[in-house]
Amino acid sequence: MRFAALLNRFWHVLTLVALLAISAQAFAQTDPLASWNDGPAKQAIINFVQATTDQSSPTFVPAEGRIATFDQDGTLWVEHPMYSQVMYCLERVPAVVKAKPELAKVEPFKTVLSGNREAMAKLSMKDLEKILAATLTGMSVDEFNTEAKAWLETVKDPRWKRPYTELTYLPMQDVLKYLRANGYKTYIVTGGGQDFVRVYAEQVYGIPPEQVVGTAGGTTYGYTKNGKPFLTKEPKLLLNDNNAGKPEGIHLMIGRRPNAAFGNSTGDRQMLEYAKAADGARLSMLVLHDDATREYAYGPAQGLPATKVGTFTQALYDEAKAKGWTVISMKSDWKRIFASSDQ
Amino acid sequence: MRFAALLNRFWHVLTLVALLAISAQAFAQTDPLASWNDGPAKQAIINFVQATTDQSSPTFVPAEGRIATFDQDGTLWVEHPMYSQVMYCLERVPAVVKAKPELAKVEPFKTVLSGNREAMAKLSMKDLEKILAATLTGMSVDEFNTEAKAWLETVKDPRWKRPYTELTYLPMQDVLKYLRANGYKTYIVTGGGQDFVRVYAEQVYGIPPEQVVGTAGGTTYGYTKNGKPFLTKEPKLLLNDNNAGKPEGIHLMIGRRPNAAFGNSTGDRQMLEYAKAADGARLSMLVLHDDATREYAYGPAQGLPATKVGTFTQALYDEAKAKGWTVISMKSDWKRIFASSDQ
Repeated sequence: MRFAALLNRFWHVLTLVALLAISAQAFAQTDPLASWNDGPAKQAIINFVQATTDQSSPTFVPAEGRIATFDQDGTLWVEHPMYSQVMYCLERVPAVVKAKPELAKVEPFKTVLSGNREAMAKLSMKDLEKILAATLTGMSVDEFNTEAKAWLETVKDPRWKRPYTELTYLPMQDVLKYLRANGYKTYIVTGGGQDFVRVYAEQVYGIPPEQVVGTAGGTTYGYTKNGKPFLTKEPKLLLNDNNAGKPEGIHLMIGRRPNAAFGNSTGDRQMLEYAKAADGARLSMLVLHDDATREYAYGPAQGLPATKVGTFTQALYDEAKAKGWTVISMKSDWKRIFASSDQ
Repeated sequence: MRFAALLNRFWHVLTLVALLAISAQAFAQTDPLASWNDGPAKQAIINFVQATTDQSSPTFVPAEGRIATFDQDGTLWVEHPMYSQVMYCLERVPAVVKAKPELAKVEPFKTVLSGNREAMAKLSMKDLEKILAATLTGMSVDEFNTEAKAWLETVKDPRWKRPYTELTYLPMQDVLKYLRANGYKTYIVTGGGQDFVRVYAEQVYGIPPEQVVGTAGGTTYGYTKNGKPFLTKEPKLLLNDNNAGKPEGIHLMIGRRPNAAFGNSTGDRQMLEYAKAADGARLSMLVLHDDATREYAYGPAQGLPATKVGTFTQALYDEAKAKGWTVISMKSDWKRIFASSDQ
């Protein structure tokens, strides 16, 4: 009986081991990029990961050196018809004017308060900068985080009537997870505000604040009346994380060249170029918005005029082809667009 | 016979499991801070880790929120009698003058070239800034990395006749490892140059470039004649990572408040204050150089004059005591000073 009991336990152990082995195999066989259609874009990602993580590959990269950078607006989530952060700043104007009533009669605040969309669309870059400075600086870091978080929880995209945080692209979420599962540190490198994106990046993309690089202003360390230290956001630009500012920001914040980079507009051009211009296996990818039905189609590659945001010009398309960057067609490469389950 | 063989394998499995359990226990019983003498400093570290990593603790911190920041010079390695980076800049002057001969007759380069130590000691902060700008900027990031790396491999500390990279403090290396083993992300937050420290931090402390925050200048993205992109180091200060600049730099580069911070001078005051001034279990520690025999003794806490570097004033000592920061006595808290085995 004692032998029988022992044997019974032994078989139990063996069964468990077998089950574990089967599960592991099943897991390995699950397609980590199931939201992608088979094609050159999907294959480029898989080839890159194999070339940099297979120890026998001549282009193998040790785990601690694996860095991938992602633009955000238009690359990880919807940017059309307006960057969510610009929307945030415009919607913060009434609160700012309430605190400083003298602004009500001053441009560009007067125009924003009027609610006249046509007049607002004509605001210059300089006007926009004034609005950004007034709505993104002058408060403590904690106050800003609270305000931005509350806004993101209530605001909805006009077309899908859903929070922006639910309008991320499933295929890109899958790429983020696939790269992380293969030892890559994933970074957001955005022209948007670093502090703004940090408010939600961990919850939405699994990317912690320290892995968000963005347009950043200075802060000033000071004290409350009770002597408690806090940081105030200042209207002093430290990093304009667009165009050449992207590789410059990557150097400042990460300190090494990414092996892979993903973008969708001319603002990402230099980042993609920088990631690709080194030895070894490199991956630079551009998301092309060519799906008017499921999302939007814009950019001259579709023979359509560029929108004010996310300019993907014909020149960028040609450069991508010439330099071996991979263009991702939302229409043909993505099986599904959005990460939220009912879209 | 078949049963016997199976039983044999079963016992084999059981023995393995038992051995593994014993090893795990032995490992758990090994003191992770063996280089520390028992006392309040060692206990403060252990208490902090238990309070933030034990799930049943009311001050438990989820793994993704565990951040610890360390000053470098004087906290992780020797800073006396001169910061290694200042030495680097002074020693780079002949090469800079060789490339730009007109500097030979201009101060402060003339004084540095003279080799007159007394005159060099009298150089002003403005002079030093000129030397830093001339030796740390104007070259590509890659060139700088190569030069700094080569220098660090050949230069030796005048007293110990060893590379600086071998003069790190074993007890602090043990703290870095202990915190990392408990899910903490460890950062260097240094007044030294971010790019300089990044050259060796991974090899010397196991801290990757992206976890080094330091005094940082801008870079400019440009192209070689062959169209290859590269970054040039510019004499434009983006972050002066000292005093209030430390919490400001932490916000810029990490985006959240550290749970623990370690320093050794007035330049670290605000970082320690910032780390401590929030709810939950917090740890702020100051290394006191009070061991003239094994290292150095300086700072008014010993009744000795402050050196030019690493000023640990009586006021800082009093503030530490008043605010619950823990002062580490190198003399009494550290069993051994250096990480290199034969020191």
